[in-house]
Amino acid sequence: MAEEKKIPYKIYLEESEMPKAWYNVRADMKNKPAPLLNPGTHQPMTAEELGGVFCEELVQQELDNDTPYFEIPQEIRDFYKMYRPSPLVRAYCLEEKLQTPAKIYYKFEGNNTSGSHKLNSAIAQAYYAKKQGLKGVTTETGAGQWGTALSMACAYLGLDCKVYMVKVSYEQKPFRREVMRTYGASVVPSPSDTTAVGRKILAEHPGTTGSLGCAISEAVEVAVSNPGYRYVLGSVLNQVLLHQSVIGLETKAALDKVGVKPDMIIGCAGGGSNLGGLISPFMGEKLRGEADYEIVAVEPASCPSFTRGVYAYDFCDTGMVCPLAKMYTLGCDFIPAPNHAGGLRYHGMSPVLSQLYADGLMKAVSVPQTAVFEAAEEFARVEGILPAPESAHAIKVAMDEARRCKETGEEKTIVFGLTGTGYFDLVAYQKFHDGLMDDYIPTDEELAAFRAKLPKMD
Amino acid sequence: MAEEKKIPYKIYLEESEMPKAWYNVRADMKNKPAPLLNPGTHQPMTAEELGGVFCEELVQQELDNDTPYFEIPQEIRDFYKMYRPSPLVRAYCLEEKLQTPAKIYYKFEGNNTSGSHKLNSAIAQAYYAKKQGLKGVTTETGAGQWGTALSMACAYLGLDCKVYMVKVSYEQKPFRREVMRTYGASVVPSPSDTTAVGRKILAEHPGTTGSLGCAISEAVEVAVSNPGYRYVLGSVLNQVLLHQSVIGLETKAALDKVGVKPDMIIGCAGGGSNLGGLISPFMGEKLRGEADYEIVAVEPASCPSFTRGVYAYDFCDTGMVCPLAKMYTLGCDFIPAPNHAGGLRYHGMSPVLSQLYADGLMKAVSVPQTAVFEAAEEFARVEGILPAPESAHAIKVAMDEARRCKETGEEKTIVFGLTGTGYFDLVAYQKFHDGLMDDYIPTDEELAAFRAKLPKMD
Repeated sequence: MAEEKKIPYKIYLEESEMPKAWYNVRADMKNKPAPLLNPGTHQPMTAEELGGVFCEELVQQELDNDTPYFEIPQEIRDFYKMYRPSPLVRAYCLEEKLQTPAKIYYKFEGNNTSGSHKLNSAIAQAYYAKKQGLKGVTTETGAGQWGTALSMACAYLGLDCKVYMVKVSYEQKPFRREVMRTYGASVVPSPSDTTAVGRKILAEHPGTTGSLGCAISEAVEVAVSNPGYRYVLGSVLNQVLLHQSVIGLETKAALDKVGVKPDMIIGCAGGGSNLGGLISPFMGEKLRGEADYEIVAVEPASCPSFTRGVYAYDFCDTGMVCPLAKMYTLGCDFIPAPNHAGGLRYHGMSPVLSQLYADGLMKAVSVPQTAVFEAAEEFARVEGILPAPESAHAIKVAMDEARRCKETGEEKTIVFGLTGTGYFDLVAYQKFHDGLMDDYIPTDEELAAFRAKLPKMD
Repeated sequence: MAEEKKIPYKIYLEESEMPKAWYNVRADMKNKPAPLLNPGTHQPMTAEELGGVFCEELVQQELDNDTPYFEIPQEIRDFYKMYRPSPLVRAYCLEEKLQTPAKIYYKFEGNNTSGSHKLNSAIAQAYYAKKQGLKGVTTETGAGQWGTALSMACAYLGLDCKVYMVKVSYEQKPFRREVMRTYGASVVPSPSDTTAVGRKILAEHPGTTGSLGCAISEAVEVAVSNPGYRYVLGSVLNQVLLHQSVIGLETKAALDKVGVKPDMIIGCAGGGSNLGGLISPFMGEKLRGEADYEIVAVEPASCPSFTRGVYAYDFCDTGMVCPLAKMYTLGCDFIPAPNHAGGLRYHGMSPVLSQLYADGLMKAVSVPQTAVFEAAEEFARVEGILPAPESAHAIKVAMDEARRCKETGEEKTIVFGLTGTGYFDLVAYQKFHDGLMDDYIPTDEELAAFRAKLPKMD
């Protein structure tokens, strides 16, 4: 450790080196992601239909499978400059701890008050809403990262922000709620009596602690029934992956700057926003035949969309009011066992990533919760940063690979996405320390039961 | 906002530009800070006496009023590289919001898991303990930043870490406690039955929720009665200001890099660690007659050591077992009214800063709590970062000054220290949002009563 290292611990881009355009990986995909379908007619959703729910420019971004680059508006670039570029960190301390010949890098997206990468898309979505002259936006939040990010973006732009927060999170994560209040958002525990769908669910399931699917349904209802409001979503959608490409573009620029080409890129995957953004430019090179990379999605064993789901059309929400998306899914009724990586507890997966996975362009692995927290703690002690449980899924697999390299002597270059910090997840860390964490893995029978309920397509 | 700015939003030093030595402002002081005195004999504490409590090299640093620079050991510089350089941020968004001609910069020390600048001295103190072959260190923590920072440093170096945490904080801030556990520290609520002084206090005051002074006494007792342990402290001491000079050195290097000379430097002050570090190199220039700066300490109105205390010898702890320090003090029995800036609730002030203040080289102001939180929220909404209540004291005064510049048209350059983030202070933000925050200010009579109990000196 004593000698000066050639590659710095943290590689920062200059402001002038920051990406000026987002990259749309769909433009380089031979097999395009399947379109969203109208849940009634099973026909592809038109721009007009989507425009009732989403802002106009975001609808264009959602549907455009051909344009490779979208210029990042100056206002968004200015906002990015407040917390970006995020550092690409060379994990010297982790390498030394593991005594591995592997070279490990991570792109750290947690250095902002939302505590995660979610802010990258939140500011973009809020910006287009503002540009369209809207009054505000609605959304749902589970773990709270997305709601916090959107609140921050709306506070900056002077937009109203209504967040439907899954009731159990609202009660168990009062601090997340309080951050959103600090940024001026109104936060409603879901299900609530402020919407028809919420009242229906409350009547049918008194005492329910809510679900992400239900909160989505409430947020969409409020958006479509209030003039001047639209709904925004923090993951899964094509537009979100487009905005999150800023992660991968910065990562690639930073690696190019120090002359490093990665062998393996690892990211956690819930709805796919972080992984999709991180891998975008690398996947682009792979699709164009310019380079090859091993790309690995990591998901929780309790919610294994990629590794044990099916590639089929399914609803994006539990309330079955949203469009159908073709994706790796466990079924929209699937309720994952309690897992503290709230951001990874989604039944489906980004249609873009789903198509890439179906085409064999990336791999996926699932890991149990306790092993993830063991890796998180080991990482925190040497690298300093307390990771979010979601991010720790990628840490776990990166560390496993680095240990394997120790056995084989491979000097592999591994890059993983450290999506955020665990400051609001300390109840989970406490459970881990107290030995109260379990590793529930759904049985094949359970998964088959949910799968049987997938919508019948013609 | 649309045009490209000449000075970037964030000024980062290259790794190679990071400070290689700490700066000891005492070397340039004409009037040196008064020495620590033995509480029994009232004679200056010798290196030998201090060596029973503190590590040897730290004792040397504590007593050395002449050496201007201390080389930062390579191991500490390597650790610094994991979370430093911290960004110097140009507050473009705040300037625009305030419509001020003032130019505002802040040095942001919150981008690490301890959430504050405390890590700068924690790693140094842990390093010298390790170098001396010790098994571990003991300390106290109130708000929790220092305890967290020390836990992180000890985890990195493989040292044992025993933290006495003020009982009321232990109970009200379970997440702070949990972060320390993640880093392997043992955290004991104080007063406890693990020490003689703790048992005595518990017998005399059953049901007490503890105090920083009591926790110090317990931590010192454990250090001096266990072979292989020493006590470490996160503020007040000369050695701490020396380590924290890395903040000011980086700030100055970053400003020099963009050709900016500040007019005013503002920092919050509890024991003085952040302020002392931030201003060190600027004060050095001022002491040497090379430049002039307006330097402002900001303290809470509920605990106004500088603005309403006296400059006198006093105990550093409530238990009166520590050495006497000459400082601005409210009296070691002074218990400030509840204030959420836990890091600023100390009865005394760094002897270095006290001497500089007595010599008229810096100013001090005190601000009430509610106004601080109003500034914090306004700052968070435009600059994105949720500040710690401590840091928000500096924000408040910087914003006041920027508003004054709007009136006068002055294009003043203001630099303030943003010491940390408020992620663990959301109970305080909640109180603020709910209108439950009060602004207790001690009366002259109350302060006089505590002052009457100052130790009688010969």
